[in-house]
Amino acid sequence: MTIRAVVWGENVHEQTNKIVADLYPDGMHGAIAASLRDGGIEATTATLQEPEHGLTEDRLAQTDVLLWWGHAAHGEVSDVIVDRVADHVHAGMGLILLHSSHFAKIFKRLMGTPCNLTWREAGERERLWITSRNHPIAAGLPDHFELENEEMYGEPFAVPEPLETVFISWFQGGEVFRSGLTYKRGAGNVFYFRPGHETYPTYYDPNVQTVLRNAVRWAHNPAPRVTGLHDAPNITVDQALEPISERGPRLHVDGEEGFK
Amino acid sequence: MTIRAVVWGENVHEQTNKIVADLYPDGMHGAIAASLRDGGIEATTATLQEPEHGLTEDRLAQTDVLLWWGHAAHGEVSDVIVDRVADHVHAGMGLILLHSSHFAKIFKRLMGTPCNLTWREAGERERLWITSRNHPIAAGLPDHFELENEEMYGEPFAVPEPLETVFISWFQGGEVFRSGLTYKRGAGNVFYFRPGHETYPTYYDPNVQTVLRNAVRWAHNPAPRVTGLHDAPNITVDQALEPISERGPRLHVDGEEGFK
Amino acid sequence: MTIRAVVWGENVHEQTNKIVADLYPDGMHGAIAASLRDGGIEATTATLQEPEHGLTEDRLAQTDVLLWWGHAAHGEVSDVIVDRVADHVHAGMGLILLHSSHFAKIFKRLMGTPCNLTWREAGERERLWITSRNHPIAAGLPDHFELENEEMYGEPFAVPEPLETVFISWFQGGEVFRSGLTYKRGAGNVFYFRPGHETYPTYYDPNVQTVLRNAVRWAHNPAPRVTGLHDAPNITVDQALEPISERGPRLHVDGEEGFK
Amino acid sequence: MTIRAVVWGENVHEQTNKIVADLYPDGMHGAIAASLRDGGIEATTATLQEPEHGLTEDRLAQTDVLLWWGHAAHGEVSDVIVDRVADHVHAGMGLILLHSSHFAKIFKRLMGTPCNLTWREAGERERLWITSRNHPIAAGLPDHFELENEEMYGEPFAVPEPLETVFISWFQGGEVFRSGLTYKRGAGNVFYFRPGHETYPTYYDPNVQTVLRNAVRWAHNPAPRVTGLHDAPNITVDQALEPISERGPRLHVDGEEGFK
Repeated sequence: MTIRAVVWGENVHEQTNKIVADLYPDGMHGAIAASLRDGGIEATTATLQEPEHGLTEDRLAQTDVLLWWGHAAHGEVSDVIVDRVADHVHAGMGLILLHSSHFAKIFKRLMGTPCNLTWREAGERERLWITSRNHPIAAGLPDHFELENEEMYGEPFAVPEPLETVFISWFQGGEVFRSGLTYKRGAGNVFYFRPGHETYPTYYDPNVQTVLRNAVRWAHNPAPRVTGLHDAPNITVDQALEPISERGPRLHVDGEEGFK
Repeated sequence: MTIRAVVWGENVHEQTNKIVADLYPDGMHGAIAASLRDGGIEATTATLQEPEHGLTEDRLAQTDVLLWWGHAAHGEVSDVIVDRVADHVHAGMGLILLHSSHFAKIFKRLMGTPCNLTWREAGERERLWITSRNHPIAAGLPDHFELENEEMYGEPFAVPEPLETVFISWFQGGEVFRSGLTYKRGAGNVFYFRPGHETYPTYYDPNVQTVLRNAVRWAHNPAPRVTGLHDAPNITVDQALEPISERGPRLHVDGEEGFK
Repeated sequence: MTIRAVVWGENVHEQTNKIVADLYPDGMHGAIAASLRDGGIEATTATLQEPEHGLTEDRLAQTDVLLWWGHAAHGEVSDVIVDRVADHVHAGMGLILLHSSHFAKIFKRLMGTPCNLTWREAGERERLWITSRNHPIAAGLPDHFELENEEMYGEPFAVPEPLETVFISWFQGGEVFRSGLTYKRGAGNVFYFRPGHETYPTYYDPNVQTVLRNAVRWAHNPAPRVTGLHDAPNITVDQALEPISERGPRLHVDGEEGFK
Repeated sequence: MTIRAVVWGENVHEQTNKIVADLYPDGMHGAIAASLRDGGIEATTATLQEPEHGLTEDRLAQTDVLLWWGHAAHGEVSDVIVDRVADHVHAGMGLILLHSSHFAKIFKRLMGTPCNLTWREAGERERLWITSRNHPIAAGLPDHFELENEEMYGEPFAVPEPLETVFISWFQGGEVFRSGLTYKRGAGNVFYFRPGHETYPTYYDPNVQTVLRNAVRWAHNPAPRVTGLHDAPNITVDQALEPISERGPRLHVDGEEGFK
């Protein structure tokens, strides 16, 4: 089954910064999508500037896995769209957060924590170590790989304890960072992957490309989307699976909806 | 060290429903606080109707553990106060969510999931089983205990996988529910405890009172509150712990703040 | 890719108890393997009585997922075979523990806990509730399903906190049990599934068969087996990824193996 | 309440290696116990060479938290004593594993995994980063601290995903390691802490001493020890909490013990 991925890009620095524009002439989202397609994934793109940021209800309903790259314009992302994406994740859409998207509204919404960290933009060496051998997201990778120039992100990283820590980064300047973390929110698989500063050619790195292809496959939940996401159905006494009689005082009358 | 707990009550049905008013003449929050005080905890109350819902910045700064009971008026809780409470949890304040507070804004904010479930108000028997023997929250309890009349909550309960499942409930009508779940959000310990429908005398039950006293002690983090909760400090090349030189192109100039 | 499953059966009560023999003329392992084959899985069987319990090194090397059912003869399973199976799990083989295998040596070995519980053989009704909607192991199942006659297992179940709780059982006699639990040990996915008492036709139940087929697919790790499972390689100063000089006193000489 | 800690030392290199003997004239266990006592903990020592390795049933019954340091003589530790210690952990005794005890029988027993890693003895710089701000084990510590000379341990570290990752180490030679990991096994809290090579003065480091004092307090479970650790009680039909009748065929007769 072909997996349908949408790579969402903020697409700001590609338009305003010559270094980024030269490095990623089709946008970072374009480069990432091309690499996913090379891996047999049906990948398209969406950007902040499109109507509804390119993430209409119809589009998301047809999306198996959404990848998200944002940095300068987190605040410009509409809360309505964030709610919509969150609902699709809860219903089963996979979500992969890239690099500076640690501060994206959608990531903070799903984590429930500040998601802050320390950082340094010095083009230093990053070395990613696999901490969960043979994890599907690490398939085909060596035990460690390097990115010669990357931005540093340092611990403490204010996120909830993950389901699994897949990668930890070593930085030349002396810091460490949990670079690959898996979560589940509702029926949706969520993966945060650290590398990807816009002034470096990170998304052309073969190991990074392998991680993203693996992560898309891992995040894909083939089950139909969950419906009634926010419903709290009232199971009446008549509908009880075991015979019971009503006892004691009540607040609600039959058929009444619960409070939300 | 005495632990300072604040029991927050929505205080709606106590004012509008005779059954609830007769059962909890001092409010559910009042009954809970009294029971905590009997256990040596310095417990006070706060309600929706007070200015800032009784949860000013100063009050929260002096609160070790906040207990939260809401049901009919989740929507009336100010988003500003929800943000404030969330920040205090991230900084280290404990938070205990009671019963219908599964739909409280603060719980959904911290969990990042819909937190929905099924329910039935039939005064049926609930039996809570301990699944984590000798967990501090279960100290002094038998392996199971019963509440003869309770509202039913049924799985699936749309919350993230917890750090630990402490209690699971059996219901007479045939359902089960994860009734005691621990989480950590930032430096704050979070506990959800299911029982507590307002038309039943649940908060007078000795075992329930034991759970709440234990939970307050468990949730208390004696460390000073974390500061700079949302900061993402820029560690410059000069400040690097290992000597590095700047390499490659940059987006930011020295001393510039990062994007949020 | 076809998945190769081996269903290991203790095969004792099928030989000594008329009820079980009549119910499962090809053994419980035979019935389970047939159901897996109906789901497109390449399933064979192995039993306690075969040389090396049917689990030779070669056989395990060709096994993607091992299912294990034992009850009366846990103590007769050779420790050498338990070690061998554990190593294959660490290296990436999936393992599914069925019912009374909670006390199997291999499960206790991998969990590191007593794995005890309470029980009652009364043919009572069990109802399994899904607690992780859309989990791959629950694909195609309703939110709950019933087994009209099963043995009861009750909490507390002395196992480590799982990666995810997928099913919780309600029992007619008043108990609950975490019936579907996922773990990872090394590169191997591990799933414990509760139902399956030998005097009842549980393994002919369509929902149970769906769970087992799903679980085999979920547990399958397509990566090549991890090698050097117990090695602790000495990375010498010369091999360090960053240039360092040796400093301070040493215990080991170059090329010496570490202590184990 | 005073916490009773026992520091178990293998006590081999202290007797056979002049560097270690000079550095730790009272043994590493002696130095650790002295530091715990300075923190108000009632700490004593036990060694491999004593009868029953100093860990009699009576001694363990009076121990709240056991610290374990082994390296050269893992294989000489009696399996009987390992079983005994494991049982006490399951029943509620805290256990702290130090450095090369990643390969101790008791750690492998409780983890169910190979617990292997990579290593290098070069006296290089290790920097420990806190990944769980305000975790009780990190109380009073800065966000990171350094050990100027330590042995390197590198990922992948073959352990189960922890409850929480508290520390991650950066090494001068380019590796990272999850240096502080929490687990729970039965009612016992378990903490692995990486630093502590015997040729370096690590256990005199004030930050390391703070970690160990904190860890002892964190690991202490004040509840009475769990009894009937390996029992699987048969709850008969008469004892069922809800009235049920026996149905269907049976394997066991009344009062019979289950299989183990």
